[in-house]
This record gives sequence, structure tokens and C-alpha cells, in this order.
Amino acid sequence: MSETSVVESRLREAGIVLPGAAAPVANYVGAVRSGRSLTVSGQLCLDGEGRLVARGRLGEHISPQEGREAAKACAINLLAQVKHAAGSLDRVVRVVRLGGFINAVPDFVDLPAVMNGASDLMVLAFGDAGRHARSTIGVASLPLGAAVEVEGLFEVDGDA
Amino acid sequence: MSETSVVESRLREAGIVLPGAAAPVANYVGAVRSGRSLTVSGQLCLDGEGRLVARGRLGEHISPQEGREAAKACAINLLAQVKHAAGSLDRVVRVVRLGGFINAVPDFVDLPAVMNGASDLMVLAFGDAGRHARSTIGVASLPLGAAVEVEGLFEVDGDA
Amino acid sequence: MSETSVVESRLREAGIVLPGAAAPVANYVGAVRSGRSLTVSGQLCLDGEGRLVARGRLGEHISPQEGREAAKACAINLLAQVKHAAGSLDRVVRVVRLGGFINAVPDFVDLPAVMNGASDLMVLAFGDAGRHARSTIGVASLPLGAAVEVEGLFEVDGDA
Repeated sequence: MSETSVVESRLREAGIVLPGAAAPVANYVGAVRSGRSLTVSGQLCLDGEGRLVARGRLGEHISPQEGREAAKACAINLLAQVKHAAGSLDRVVRVVRLGGFINAVPDFVDLPAVMNGASDLMVLAFGDAGRHARSTIGVASLPLGAAVEVEGLFEVDGDA
Repeated sequence: MSETSVVESRLREAGIVLPGAAAPVANYVGAVRSGRSLTVSGQLCLDGEGRLVARGRLGEHISPQEGREAAKACAINLLAQVKHAAGSLDRVVRVVRLGGFINAVPDFVDLPAVMNGASDLMVLAFGDAGRHARSTIGVASLPLGAAVEVEGLFEVDGDA
Repeated sequence: MSETSVVESRLREAGIVLPGAAAPVANYVGAVRSGRSLTVSGQLCLDGEGRLVARGRLGEHISPQEGREAAKACAINLLAQVKHAAGSLDRVVRVVRLGGFINAVPDFVDLPAVMNGASDLMVLAFGDAGRHARSTIGVASLPLGAAVEVEGLFEVDGDA
């Protein structure tokens, strides 16, 4: 990191270090810029070394607290993609939307508390500009058996 | 409501009164404006008093007609968020997209008929400008056990 | 097709002929233009004659290879909608995002390989401009019992 990023400094003070952006593994990419919108691919709950922090379903193998940590890991990976695509997290004008996909058994309904792990990270990073629209759903399965996947839409400044 | 809204008048004639926009319950908000786009958070099938109008799964506890009414309730809540964020429903230029999440058992496949409850409300409110792109899927679970959740993307005029 | 389309020629060389855009069957439409964004409704894995190419769930009735072909069929239907809405596929500046919904049993986790059938088609059609952000999830059910549904967001040039 050659420049001082206000947002990254704030994250580091909270003990959060961004990993490298996960490399594309097929014919898609981590993020696409169109105008001032940056659309980020769904990110799994992988840690900085590419390992799942939670594998399995909420309401079965994964506790709500583990799910919340998994959602936070997804959010950190979203920010890594934003930094890679936009050059710096300081170019984020607004977190527009998060979409949360929670791997859950049909009877598990406290999906919002799990998703808060991702939402809280955005507000930690960006303050009020991190407050976003969101949709949270329980899904039948996720890639690699991940417990949580989160996608994001960001408004960024400057030219594409 | 201090101003006369053409769209709200039309809704009232059809017997539909908008509730207040549901308050944010965590670090997210009901809707985010970015340029001319207004992204609205997934809305559950809550009535004007905050009670679920349908709880459970299509194909199990909930009939298609009940599901359709639930989707309509989600759409009404979307409009409440749009009014709150944009000031008036009359600023809606186009309903761009609805995303419908139907809580359903795997063998229930008539998801489009359920989702029509939301789509029809948009056309009732906005006429041709209410005809939108949409995606409808059956999900494993939803917050609070709601039968239906719908998210929306709207184009609005004027300045942010 | 009255004009020569570079992209359609490329598809034809690969043996792919676009079907007509599926007609709207309710109060929604195949695609909505807003500024330079074209939002396309979720497309099912229908062939050129409107028949499902794969019905059922991955991990149960449908093999990964059949799922991949189903995802490709969804992508072809997305392009048919884009052509119908934008006039020509040559007006696509960028494939911004695909959302992949895979009808899957909870234990089926190789969802990305299925979704590659859609992603690869976009790169075949548009080259680097076809490389997109994407989110892939396993869902509990889909309309008609389809194995795969894919939605899309495209950046297009020219005036609306």
C-alpha cells in the first residue's frame, strides 16, 4: 500500500487487515465498474489464507455467532475487491447495497443477526456512508459449502 | 402527507394506504439513493402494524393465494420506503427491477403466480412505468419466517 | 436481423442461434433500460422452442454437465432479451453482473462449475467485455422446476 488510506487505517485500528483480492477462478471477475457504480461479486467467508472460516448450515453445524463472524469475513473480502478495483477504499462515496446469502436450514429464521456481521463492518469502515440497503435470505446451498456469501454494490468517485 | 400525490391517490382509490416506512433495525437503511437509482432493501410481508401477513412456506403452510397477498404486502412496503426516501411516489420515473424471494418447499414451483402479487401492485401504482424486470426464486428460509420478501430498484427524477 | 451484428456472427460461428426474446407472461418485462444500465429479468433454462432443457435439482436429477448446459441456455436467453431491448448485441459495452440461481440439494456445493456455463457464453460473445461480476447461490426451488435461472445487468451505449 503506497498511499495512506483513511479507511484502511481505521480498519487496522480495529485489528482488521485486508487480504489480497481473491483472484478470478473462471470467466468472471471480482468487480466491475460502470459509471460511478462498482458491482462486486459474491464473496465467500474465506480468511486471509483462503480457508473457509465457517462451513455448513446455520441451524445445524454453525452457531449464530459463528455465522456473524462468517458474514464479517465476507465483508472484509468485499472491501479487498473494492480496494483492488478502485485503487483505494477512500474512493468509496457510499455503500449502496449488500446482498446476504445465508446457508441455513428451513427453520433457522434469525438471518438478520447473522448478516449484521457484514453490515457492522461497513459502518466501522465508512461511518454513515457505510449504511446500506440490504436483502438477506436463507439459501439451500453455497459454493464450497460456505456458511455465508455476501455481494455488494458501491458508489465510487472519480473516473472509471 | 402535505402534498397531493397522484400515485398515492390512485392507491387510495384501490383501498391501499401506505404504512410508515419500516425503521432500520440494524446498521442498514431502508433505501439508498445513488444518482437516479434508488435501491430499496428487501421488504418482508408485514402489515401496517408490523405483523407478518403470512408466516411459513409455500407448498406447506401457505396457499398460493395467501402468498400472492404476502407479495402484495411486500410491494406496499417497498413503496413506503420509496416515498420516505424520495419524498413522493410521483418522483418515480420507472420501476426498474423487483427481486422476489419466496419461502417455499422444493416441490413448489408456481413461484411466478405468487410474485405477481407484487408486480400487479407496481402496475396499479405507476401504470406502464411500473412494468419492471424481475427475478423470482424459492428460498430455504427468510427473516422471521416470512413467506415472502421483495427487494426493489427504482429510477427517480430530480437531485439526490 | 436486418443489420450485421458482429457479436451474433461470432455466436453463429459457435453454433449458437438466438431465439426470440421470451414474451412477458405477467406484469413484468424482459428488460428495463435506465441510463446506460440494462437490467434483464431472470431467465430460465428454456430452449428455442420454450421447453426446459433441464428440470430438477443438481445433486439429484441433474448432473453437473447438464446443469452447465442449462446455465448456458439461460445465458443465451439473456442475450435474446438484450438484443430485443437494445436493438443489437453490438451495443453492449460491458456485461456488468450475472446472478446465478441453481436449483440444488443442500449437499451439492459445486455451484460455480454449473454457473460457468453462463459465464463462458458471455466471454464467447463479448470477449473481455463479457467478463462480469457474479454471485452464485443454490436455491430451494425455481419457476417451472427449472434447474437453473440467471439474471443479468449490462452496460449499453447510446440513448435510451
